[in-house]
Amino acid sequence: MSSATADRLARQIEFLVEVDKLKEVLRRTVVTQSRRAENSAEHTWHLCLVVVTLAEHANAPQLDLLRVLRMLLIHDLVEIDAGDTFAYDAAAMVGQHEREARAAERIFGLLPPDQTAEYRALWDEFEAHTTPEAQFALACDRFQAMLLNARTEGHAWKKHGVTHDRVLARNAAVQDGSQAIWEYATRMIGESVAQGHLPPAPAGRK
Amino acid sequence: MSSATADRLARQIEFLVEVDKLKEVLRRTVVTQSRRAENSAEHTWHLCLVVVTLAEHANAPQLDLLRVLRMLLIHDLVEIDAGDTFAYDAAAMVGQHEREARAAERIFGLLPPDQTAEYRALWDEFEAHTTPEAQFALACDRFQAMLLNARTEGHAWKKHGVTHDRVLARNAAVQDGSQAIWEYATRMIGESVAQGHLPPAPAGRK
Repeated sequence: MSSATADRLARQIEFLVEVDKLKEVLRRTVVTQSRRAENSAEHTWHLCLVVVTLAEHANAPQLDLLRVLRMLLIHDLVEIDAGDTFAYDAAAMVGQHEREARAAERIFGLLPPDQTAEYRALWDEFEAHTTPEAQFALACDRFQAMLLNARTEGHAWKKHGVTHDRVLARNAAVQDGSQAIWEYATRMIGESVAQGHLPPAPAGRK
Repeated sequence: MSSATADRLARQIEFLVEVDKLKEVLRRTVVTQSRRAENSAEHTWHLCLVVVTLAEHANAPQLDLLRVLRMLLIHDLVEIDAGDTFAYDAAAMVGQHEREARAAERIFGLLPPDQTAEYRALWDEFEAHTTPEAQFALACDRFQAMLLNARTEGHAWKKHGVTHDRVLARNAAVQDGSQAIWEYATRMIGESVAQGHLPPAPAGRK
Protein backbone atom coordinates (compact mmCIF):
# COMPACT_ATOMS: atom_id res chain seq x y z
CA MET A 1 0.00 0.00 0.00
CA SER A 2 1.48 3.36 -1.03
CA SER A 3 1.77 6.04 1.62
CA ALA A 4 -0.83 8.13 -0.27
CA THR A 5 -3.27 5.21 -0.14
CA ALA A 6 -2.47 4.65 3.52
CA ASP A 7 -3.16 8.33 4.33
CA ARG A 8 -6.38 8.23 2.38
CA LEU A 9 -7.55 5.05 4.10
CA ALA A 10 -6.66 6.50 7.52
CA ARG A 11 -8.82 9.60 6.86
CA GLN A 12 -11.71 7.47 5.65
CA ILE A 13 -11.52 5.34 8.76
CA GLU A 14 -11.50 8.37 11.07
CA PHE A 15 -14.72 9.43 9.35
CA LEU A 16 -16.17 5.94 9.89
CA VAL A 17 -15.31 6.14 13.59
CA GLU A 18 -16.86 9.61 13.93
CA VAL A 19 -20.15 8.51 12.35
CA ASP A 20 -20.57 5.84 15.03
CA LYS A 21 -22.03 8.72 17.07
CA LEU A 22 -25.21 8.58 14.97
CA LYS A 23 -26.18 5.53 17.04
CA GLU A 24 -26.69 7.88 20.00
CA VAL A 25 -29.02 10.34 18.23
CA LEU A 26 -32.58 9.55 19.28
CA ARG A 27 -35.71 10.16 17.25
CA ARG A 28 -39.29 10.66 18.46
CA THR A 29 -40.48 7.42 16.88
CA VAL A 30 -40.22 4.23 18.94
CA VAL A 31 -39.38 0.72 17.81
CA THR A 32 -42.24 -1.76 17.57
CA GLN A 33 -41.05 -4.27 20.21
CA SER A 34 -39.62 -2.63 23.32
CA ARG A 35 -41.06 0.82 22.47
CA ARG A 36 -37.76 2.53 23.22
CA ALA A 37 -36.80 5.54 21.09
CA GLU A 38 -35.38 4.64 17.71
CA ASN A 39 -31.94 6.00 16.92
CA SER A 40 -31.01 7.56 13.59
CA ALA A 41 -28.52 4.82 12.65
CA GLU A 42 -30.98 1.93 12.92
CA HIS A 43 -33.65 4.14 11.32
CA THR A 44 -31.35 4.55 8.32
CA TRP A 45 -30.83 0.81 7.98
CA HIS A 46 -34.59 0.24 8.10
CA LEU A 47 -35.15 2.97 5.56
CA CYS A 48 -32.58 1.51 3.14
CA LEU A 49 -34.38 -1.82 3.35
CA VAL A 50 -37.68 -0.03 2.64
CA VAL A 51 -36.03 1.45 -0.48
CA VAL A 52 -34.77 -1.82 -1.95
CA THR A 53 -37.96 -3.69 -1.06
CA LEU A 54 -40.41 -1.11 -2.41
CA ALA A 55 -38.33 0.21 -5.34
CA GLU A 56 -40.81 -1.16 -7.90
CA HIS A 57 -43.44 1.26 -6.55
CA ALA A 58 -41.42 4.42 -7.30
CA ASN A 59 -43.08 6.84 -9.70
CA ALA A 60 -39.88 7.10 -11.75
CA PRO A 61 -39.51 4.12 -14.09
CA GLN A 62 -35.71 4.17 -14.01
CA LEU A 63 -34.17 4.92 -10.66
CA ASP A 64 -30.47 4.83 -9.76
CA LEU A 65 -30.99 2.80 -6.58
CA LEU A 66 -27.33 2.87 -5.64
CA ARG A 67 -27.49 6.68 -5.57
CA VAL A 68 -30.66 6.54 -3.45
CA LEU A 69 -28.87 4.30 -0.95
CA ARG A 70 -25.69 6.39 -0.90
CA MET A 71 -27.83 9.45 -0.25
CA LEU A 72 -29.72 7.81 2.59
CA LEU A 73 -26.68 6.24 4.25
CA ILE A 74 -25.32 9.75 4.87
CA HIS A 75 -28.54 11.83 5.02
CA ASP A 76 -28.81 11.92 8.81
CA LEU A 77 -25.12 12.29 9.71
CA VAL A 78 -25.57 16.03 10.25
CA GLU A 79 -27.68 15.12 13.31
CA ILE A 80 -24.46 14.16 15.10
CA ASP A 81 -23.88 17.90 15.57
CA ALA A 82 -27.33 19.37 14.91
CA GLY A 83 -29.53 16.79 16.66
CA ASP A 84 -32.71 15.26 15.28
CA THR A 85 -35.37 17.88 14.56
CA PHE A 86 -38.88 16.60 15.19
CA ALA A 87 -40.93 16.83 12.02
CA TYR A 88 -43.84 18.51 13.79
CA ASP A 89 -41.88 21.06 15.83
CA ALA A 90 -41.98 24.31 13.83
CA ALA A 91 -39.95 26.25 16.42
CA ALA A 92 -37.10 23.73 16.41
CA MET A 93 -37.01 23.84 12.63
CA VAL A 94 -36.00 27.54 12.60
CA GLY A 95 -32.34 27.68 11.61
CA GLN A 96 -32.26 23.93 11.12
CA HIS A 97 -30.79 24.02 7.63
CA GLU A 98 -27.97 26.36 8.68
CA ARG A 99 -27.05 24.18 11.68
CA GLU A 100 -27.13 21.11 9.51
CA ALA A 101 -25.06 22.72 6.76
CA ARG A 102 -22.33 23.55 9.30
CA ALA A 103 -22.46 19.95 10.52
CA ALA A 104 -22.17 18.66 6.95
CA GLU A 105 -19.08 20.79 6.46
CA ARG A 106 -17.37 19.42 9.55
CA ILE A 107 -18.35 15.77 9.23
CA PHE A 108 -17.92 15.27 5.47
CA GLY A 109 -14.75 17.37 5.78
CA LEU A 110 -13.11 14.51 7.66
CA LEU A 111 -12.90 12.59 4.36
CA PRO A 112 -10.41 13.03 1.51
CA PRO A 113 -11.46 16.09 -0.57
CA ASP A 114 -13.07 14.16 -3.47
CA GLN A 115 -15.29 12.24 -1.04
CA THR A 116 -16.08 15.38 0.95
CA ALA A 117 -17.43 16.87 -2.29
CA GLU A 118 -19.25 13.67 -3.27
CA TYR A 119 -21.02 13.23 0.08
CA ARG A 120 -21.88 16.89 0.30
CA ALA A 121 -23.43 16.76 -3.18
CA LEU A 122 -25.48 13.71 -2.16
CA TRP A 123 -26.66 15.46 0.98
CA ASP A 124 -27.57 18.62 -0.97
CA GLU A 125 -29.44 16.48 -3.49
CA PHE A 126 -31.46 14.83 -0.72
CA GLU A 127 -32.22 18.15 0.95
CA ALA A 128 -33.41 19.73 -2.32
CA HIS A 129 -35.59 16.69 -3.15
CA THR A 130 -35.98 17.58 -6.81
CA THR A 131 -34.36 14.56 -8.52
CA PRO A 132 -36.37 11.32 -8.81
CA GLU A 133 -33.79 9.61 -6.58
CA ALA A 134 -34.13 12.22 -3.82
CA GLN A 135 -37.92 12.20 -4.10
CA PHE A 136 -38.09 8.44 -3.67
CA ALA A 137 -35.56 8.60 -0.81
CA LEU A 138 -37.69 11.22 0.95
CA ALA A 139 -40.89 9.25 0.32
CA CYS A 140 -39.39 6.19 2.01
CA ASP A 141 -37.98 8.29 4.88
CA ARG A 142 -41.39 9.79 5.64
CA PHE A 143 -43.19 6.48 5.14
CA GLN A 144 -40.91 4.57 7.52
CA ALA A 145 -41.72 7.04 10.33
CA MET A 146 -45.47 6.86 9.67
CA LEU A 147 -45.32 3.07 9.57
CA LEU A 148 -43.61 2.87 12.99
CA ASN A 149 -46.14 5.30 14.42
CA ALA A 150 -49.08 3.36 13.00
CA ARG A 151 -47.66 0.08 14.32
CA THR A 152 -47.07 1.43 17.84
CA GLU A 153 -50.64 2.68 18.37
CA GLY A 154 -49.58 6.19 17.34
CA HIS A 155 -46.98 6.41 20.13
CA ALA A 156 -45.11 9.55 18.99
CA TRP A 157 -48.20 11.16 17.47
CA LYS A 158 -50.12 10.94 20.73
CA LYS A 159 -47.16 11.91 22.91
CA HIS A 160 -46.55 15.08 20.91
CA GLY A 161 -50.15 16.00 20.15
CA VAL A 162 -49.91 15.57 16.41
CA THR A 163 -53.24 15.45 14.55
CA HIS A 164 -54.45 13.82 11.33
CA ASP A 165 -54.34 17.00 9.23
CA ARG A 166 -50.74 17.68 10.22
CA VAL A 167 -49.64 14.14 9.36
CA LEU A 168 -51.23 14.48 5.92
CA ALA A 169 -49.68 17.91 5.31
CA ARG A 170 -46.22 16.92 6.56
CA ASN A 171 -46.08 13.77 4.50
CA ALA A 172 -47.73 14.86 1.26
CA ALA A 173 -44.28 14.81 -0.38
CA VAL A 174 -44.47 11.01 -0.32
CA GLN A 175 -46.61 11.16 -3.46
CA ASP A 176 -43.80 12.87 -5.40
CA GLY A 177 -41.75 9.72 -4.90
CA SER A 178 -44.44 7.06 -4.99
CA GLN A 179 -48.18 7.34 -5.62
CA ALA A 180 -48.63 3.72 -4.52
CA ILE A 181 -46.92 4.21 -1.17
CA TRP A 182 -48.88 7.41 -0.60
CA GLU A 183 -52.13 5.57 -1.33
CA TYR A 184 -51.19 2.87 1.19
CA ALA A 185 -50.10 5.52 3.72
CA THR A 186 -53.27 7.61 3.56
CA ARG A 187 -55.37 4.49 4.15
CA MET A 188 -53.10 3.43 7.02
CA ILE A 189 -53.34 6.88 8.62
CA GLY A 190 -57.11 6.84 8.22
CA GLU A 191 -57.20 3.54 10.09
CA SER A 192 -55.07 5.05 12.85
CA VAL A 193 -57.66 7.82 13.22
CA ALA A 194 -60.51 5.27 13.26
CA GLN A 195 -58.68 3.25 15.94
CA GLY A 196 -58.13 6.31 18.10
CA HIS A 197 -54.35 6.31 17.64
CA LEU A 198 -54.23 9.60 15.79
CA PRO A 199 -56.50 12.48 16.85
CA PRO A 200 -58.56 14.06 14.08
CA ALA A 201 -57.99 17.68 13.10
CA PRO A 202 -59.28 20.09 15.78
CA ALA A 203 -62.68 21.63 14.97
CA GLY A 204 -62.22 24.56 12.64
CA ARG A 205 -59.02 23.21 11.09
CA LYS A 206 -59.33 20.98 8.08
CA MET B 1 -53.41 0.79 -7.75
CA SER B 2 -54.58 -2.65 -8.95
CA SER B 3 -55.62 -5.17 -6.32
CA ALA B 4 -52.62 -7.35 -7.26
CA THR B 5 -50.29 -4.41 -6.62
CA ALA B 6 -52.09 -3.62 -3.38
CA ASP B 7 -51.69 -7.24 -2.19
CA ARG B 8 -48.04 -7.23 -3.13
CA LEU B 9 -47.39 -3.95 -1.35
CA ALA B 10 -49.23 -5.19 1.75
CA ARG B 11 -46.99 -8.29 1.93
CA GLN B 12 -43.85 -6.22 1.45
CA ILE B 13 -44.90 -3.90 4.24
CA GLU B 14 -45.61 -6.79 6.63
CA PHE B 15 -42.04 -7.91 5.96
CA LEU B 16 -40.78 -4.38 6.66
CA VAL B 17 -42.65 -4.35 9.99
CA GLU B 18 -41.28 -7.78 10.96
CA VAL B 19 -37.67 -6.77 10.30
CA ASP B 20 -38.01 -3.93 12.83
CA LYS B 21 -37.20 -6.65 15.39
CA LEU B 22 -33.56 -6.62 14.26
CA LYS B 23 -33.18 -3.43 16.32
CA GLU B 24 -33.56 -5.59 19.45
CA VAL B 25 -30.84 -8.12 18.56
CA LEU B 26 -27.71 -7.24 20.53
CA ARG B 27 -24.14 -7.95 19.49
CA ARG B 28 -21.07 -8.33 21.71
CA THR B 29 -19.45 -5.21 20.33
CA VAL B 30 -20.23 -1.89 22.02
CA VAL B 31 -20.70 1.54 20.46
CA THR B 32 -17.87 4.02 20.91
CA GLN B 33 -19.73 6.69 22.93
CA SER B 34 -22.01 5.23 25.61
CA ARG B 35 -20.41 1.76 25.43
CA ARG B 36 -23.79 0.06 25.31
CA ALA B 37 -24.15 -3.09 23.19
CA GLU B 38 -24.54 -2.42 19.49
CA ASN B 39 -27.64 -3.87 17.85
CA SER B 40 -27.60 -5.63 14.50
CA ALA B 41 -29.70 -2.99 12.73
CA GLU B 42 -27.39 -0.06 13.49
CA HIS B 43 -24.40 -2.35 12.86
CA THR B 44 -25.74 -2.97 9.36
CA TRP B 45 -26.10 0.74 8.67
CA HIS B 46 -22.54 1.35 9.81
CA LEU B 47 -21.30 -1.52 7.70
CA CYS B 48 -23.06 -0.24 4.57
CA LEU B 49 -21.37 3.11 5.06
CA VAL B 50 -18.02 1.30 5.43
CA VAL B 51 -18.73 -0.38 2.08
CA VAL B 52 -19.49 2.77 0.10
CA THR B 53 -16.67 4.74 1.75
CA LEU B 54 -13.96 2.09 1.30
CA ALA B 55 -15.13 0.57 -2.01
CA GLU B 56 -12.03 1.78 -3.84
CA HIS B 57 -9.91 -0.52 -1.65
CA ALA B 58 -11.66 -3.73 -2.74
CA ASN B 59 -9.41 -6.29 -4.42
CA ALA B 60 -11.90 -6.71 -7.28
CA PRO B 61 -11.56 -3.87 -9.80
CA GLN B 62 -15.23 -3.96 -10.80
CA LEU B 63 -17.67 -4.51 -7.97
CA ASP B 64 -21.46 -4.39 -8.17
CA LEU B 65 -21.85 -2.16 -5.11
CA LEU B 66 -25.63 -2.20 -5.23
CA ARG B 67 -25.51 -5.99 -4.88
CA VAL B 68 -23.09 -5.70 -1.96
CA LEU B 69 -25.50 -3.32 -0.22
CA ARG B 70 -28.57 -5.42 -0.94
CA MET B 71 -26.74 -8.43 0.48
CA LEU B 72 -25.73 -6.58 3.64
CA LEU B 73 -29.10 -4.94 4.26
CA ILE B 74 -30.60 -8.42 4.70
CA HIS B 75 -27.56 -10.46 5.88
CA ASP B 76 -28.38 -10.31 9.60
CA LEU B 77 -32.19 -10.66 9.42
CA VAL B 78 -31.94 -14.35 10.32
CA GLU B 79 -30.78 -13.22 13.78
CA ILE B 80 -34.36 -12.18 14.53
CA ASP B 81 -35.08 -15.88 15.04
CA ALA B 82 -31.60 -17.37 15.49
CA GLY B 83 -29.95 -14.66 17.62
CA ASP B 84 -26.51 -13.19 17.11
CA THR B 85 -23.78 -15.82 17.33
CA PHE B 86 -20.57 -14.47 18.84
CA ALA B 87 -17.73 -14.91 16.39
CA TYR B 88 -15.45 -16.44 19.02
CA ASP B 89 -17.93 -18.85 20.60
CA ALA B 90 -17.28 -22.22 18.93
CA ALA B 91 -19.99 -24.01 20.95
CA ALA B 92 -22.69 -21.51 19.97
CA MET B 93 -21.70 -21.87 16.33
CA VAL B 94 -22.70 -25.56 16.25
CA GLY B 95 -25.94 -25.82 14.28
CA GLN B 96 -25.84 -22.10 13.55
CA HIS B 97 -26.26 -22.43 9.80
CA GLU B 98 -29.28 -24.72 10.14
CA ARG B 99 -30.98 -22.38 12.61
CA GLU B 100 -30.29 -19.45 10.36
CA ALA B 101 -31.51 -21.25 7.25
CA ARG B 102 -34.85 -21.94 8.97
CA ALA B 103 -35.04 -18.28 9.93
CA ALA B 104 -34.29 -17.22 6.35
CA GLU B 105 -37.15 -19.40 5.15
CA ARG B 106 -39.64 -17.86 7.53
CA ILE B 107 -38.58 -14.23 7.26
CA PHE B 108 -37.92 -13.97 3.52
CA GLY B 109 -41.07 -16.08 3.06
CA LEU B 110 -43.15 -13.11 4.21
CA LEU B 111 -42.39 -11.41 0.89
CA PRO B 112 -43.98 -12.06 -2.53
CA PRO B 113 -42.39 -15.23 -4.03
CA ASP B 114 -40.04 -13.47 -6.47
CA GLN B 115 -38.57 -11.38 -3.65
CA THR B 116 -38.40 -14.38 -1.32
CA ALA B 117 -36.20 -16.05 -3.94
CA GLU B 118 -34.15 -12.91 -4.56
CA TYR B 119 -33.40 -12.23 -0.88
CA ARG B 120 -32.66 -15.89 -0.21
CA ALA B 121 -30.19 -15.95 -3.11
CA LEU B 122 -28.49 -12.83 -1.74
CA TRP B 123 -28.27 -14.37 1.71
CA ASP B 124 -26.86 -17.63 0.30
CA GLU B 125 -24.34 -15.63 -1.72
CA PHE B 126 -23.18 -13.79 1.40
CA GLU B 127 -22.94 -17.00 3.42
CA ALA B 128 -20.88 -18.76 0.73
CA HIS B 129 -18.53 -15.77 0.36
CA THR B 130 -17.14 -16.87 -2.96
CA THR B 131 -18.19 -14.00 -5.25
CA PRO B 132 -16.14 -10.76 -5.18
CA GLU B 133 -19.23 -8.94 -3.87
CA ALA B 134 -19.71 -11.35 -0.98
CA GLN B 135 -15.99 -11.32 -0.18
CA PHE B 136 -15.93 -7.54 0.05
CA ALA B 137 -19.15 -7.55 2.07
CA LEU B 138 -17.65 -10.03 4.52
CA ALA B 139 -14.38 -8.08 4.71
CA CYS B 140 -16.27 -4.93 5.71
CA ASP B 141 -18.45 -6.86 8.19
CA ARG B 142 -15.42 -8.27 9.98
CA PHE B 143 -13.53 -4.99 9.79
CA GLN B 144 -16.36 -2.96 11.30
CA ALA B 145 -16.40 -5.23 14.38
CA MET B 146 -12.61 -5.06 14.80
CA LEU B 147 -12.70 -1.28 14.42
CA LEU B 148 -15.30 -0.87 17.18
CA ASN B 149 -13.31 -3.19 19.43
CA ALA B 150 -10.07 -1.33 18.78
CA ARG B 151 -11.77 2.03 19.43
CA THR B 152 -13.35 0.89 22.73
CA GLU B 153 -10.08 -0.29 24.32
CA GLY B 154 -10.84 -3.87 23.26
CA HIS B 155 -14.12 -3.93 25.20
CA ALA B 156 -15.61 -7.15 23.77
CA TRP B 157 -12.23 -8.84 23.30
CA LYS B 158 -11.32 -8.37 26.96
CA LYS B 159 -14.79 -9.22 28.25
CA HIS B 160 -14.83 -12.52 26.38
CA GLY B 161 -11.16 -13.46 26.75
CA VAL B 162 -10.34 -13.26 23.06
CA THR B 163 -6.62 -13.24 22.22
CA HIS B 164 -4.52 -11.80 19.37
CA ASP B 165 -4.07 -15.12 17.54
CA ARG B 166 -7.80 -15.76 17.49
CA VAL B 167 -8.58 -12.31 16.14
CA LEU B 168 -6.09 -12.84 13.31
CA ALA B 169 -7.44 -16.33 12.51
CA ARG B 170 -11.08 -15.29 12.67
CA ASN B 171 -10.63 -12.27 10.46
CA ALA B 172 -8.12 -13.55 7.89
CA ALA B 173 -10.96 -13.64 5.34
CA VAL B 174 -10.77 -9.84 5.22
CA GLN B 175 -7.84 -10.18 2.82
CA ASP B 176 -10.01 -12.03 0.29
CA GLY B 177 -12.07 -8.86 -0.02
CA SER B 178 -9.43 -6.19 0.49
CA GLN B 179 -5.68 -6.47 0.98
CA ALA B 180 -5.53 -2.78 1.90
CA ILE B 181 -8.14 -3.07 4.66
CA TRP B 182 -6.44 -6.21 5.98
CA GLU B 183 -3.10 -4.40 6.07
CA TYR B 184 -4.69 -1.57 8.07
CA ALA B 185 -6.48 -4.05 10.34
CA THR B 186 -3.41 -6.11 11.21
CA ARG B 187 -1.52 -2.94 12.17
CA MET B 188 -4.51 -1.73 14.20
CA ILE B 189 -4.77 -5.06 16.02
CA GLY B 190 -1.03 -5.02 16.69
CA GLU B 191 -1.46 -1.60 18.31
CA SER B 192 -4.30 -2.95 20.45
CA VAL B 193 -1.95 -5.66 21.72
CA ALA B 194 0.80 -3.10 22.40
CA GLN B 195 -1.68 -0.91 24.33
CA GLY B 196 -2.85 -3.85 26.44
CA HIS B 197 -6.35 -3.91 24.92
CA LEU B 198 -5.97 -7.32 23.31
CA PRO B 199 -4.13 -10.09 25.16
CA PRO B 200 -1.35 -11.83 23.19
CA ALA B 201 -1.66 -15.52 22.32
CA PRO B 202 -1.23 -17.73 25.40
CA ALA B 203 2.25 -19.27 25.71
CA GLY B 204 2.47 -22.39 23.55
CA ARG B 205 -0.16 -21.16 21.08
CA LYS B 206 0.99 -19.09 18.15
